[in-house]
Amino acid sequence: MYETLRKHIEKQITLTDEEFDFVQHHFKSRKYKRHQFIIQEGEMVKYSYFIISGLTKLVYQEESGKSHIISFAMEDWWESDFNAFLTQQPASFSLECIEDTEVLYISLADYKTICSQLQKIASFFLEKAHFGNIAAQRRILSLLTSNAKARYEQLLKQYPSLFQRVPKSLLAAYLGVSRETLSRLAG
Amino acid sequence: MYETLRKHIEKQITLTDEEFDFVQHHFKSRKYKRHQFIIQEGEMVKYSYFIISGLTKLVYQEESGKSHIISFAMEDWWESDFNAFLTQQPASFSLECIEDTEVLYISLADYKTICSQLQKIASFFLEKAHFGNIAAQRRILSLLTSNAKARYEQLLKQYPSLFQRVPKSLLAAYLGVSRETLSRLAG
Repeated sequence: MYETLRKHIEKQITLTDEEFDFVQHHFKSRKYKRHQFIIQEGEMVKYSYFIISGLTKLVYQEESGKSHIISFAMEDWWESDFNAFLTQQPASFSLECIEDTEVLYISLADYKTICSQLQKIASFFLEKAHFGNIAAQRRILSLLTSNAKARYEQLLKQYPSLFQRVPKSLLAAYLGVSRETLSRLAG
Repeated sequence: MYETLRKHIEKQITLTDEEFDFVQHHFKSRKYKRHQFIIQEGEMVKYSYFIISGLTKLVYQEESGKSHIISFAMEDWWESDFNAFLTQQPASFSLECIEDTEVLYISLADYKTICSQLQKIASFFLEKAHFGNIAAQRRILSLLTSNAKARYEQLLKQYPSLFQRVPKSLLAAYLGVSRETLSRLAG
């Protein structure tokens, strides 16, 4: 399990055994069942999560009850309500498991410790953050271009495995289209 | 001008004169007139920009000619086509000046140099990247909730100064609503 984390980090940087040992000691692991919550809206967000296996959705629920999916995350991805995590405030989003999910998690204090004591890890997370930003920019663009068909095809191309694993109703909530529109696009 | 950059950095971290000197020597400055392009779509993106004064829009143009505004940036903000900058590819977006704009800019090689040689600067940019991610997440949410009125009010609350400085047609392109809808909301 920690090997998965090491492989993930070593796609970008190389760590000695001692350095990886130092890093991994700041993480803990936990398993969740399908439908369980990793983060519940309104609760303090103490951790950032690295997904070892499984699939999650980060959800925002309007007061009216309508739900929106901010992002999906699966093995090899980092996920949290990052605003709440970094500012140590209650969650605005909930993080729910679509499949049985196993995670490694780290507290903000430990995250700051490994970044300040190991320059290479700070670089690693800086690059992750940059590419998170790029993905978000792409998503914004995709929502602005307001063409449901193009949005659907872009997602299909970027993350083909999502289409096997995610129920159609959730894909529709992610794309910001109705279930009926999605069926038409997928047909 | 470099004092503005120093003040901006020192909101988060403290630098000695020697350290700031090291940092500032990796930046250059340039002035642009209103309507000039800092980045043109299709050209290589060599730099990331720190805005000293002025106001810019990051624009995506569809093949049909329809334009979408990804983001506005003004004094004290960092802006670029970050995907193109970080992967050293041609720009998908253009960065245009809405007002006369003065920037400091840094190349990717120099950015990597200052981050790897000065741990505190890597931490500074990591925090910037995190909060860029949070802002993007908020924008995604605002586009998903698909309520033009709420979107307008959120923007007004977050960036009141934009409303004095940005023409209504550009605000509409940012919010993803028609000029007519915006007039109705602002009325």
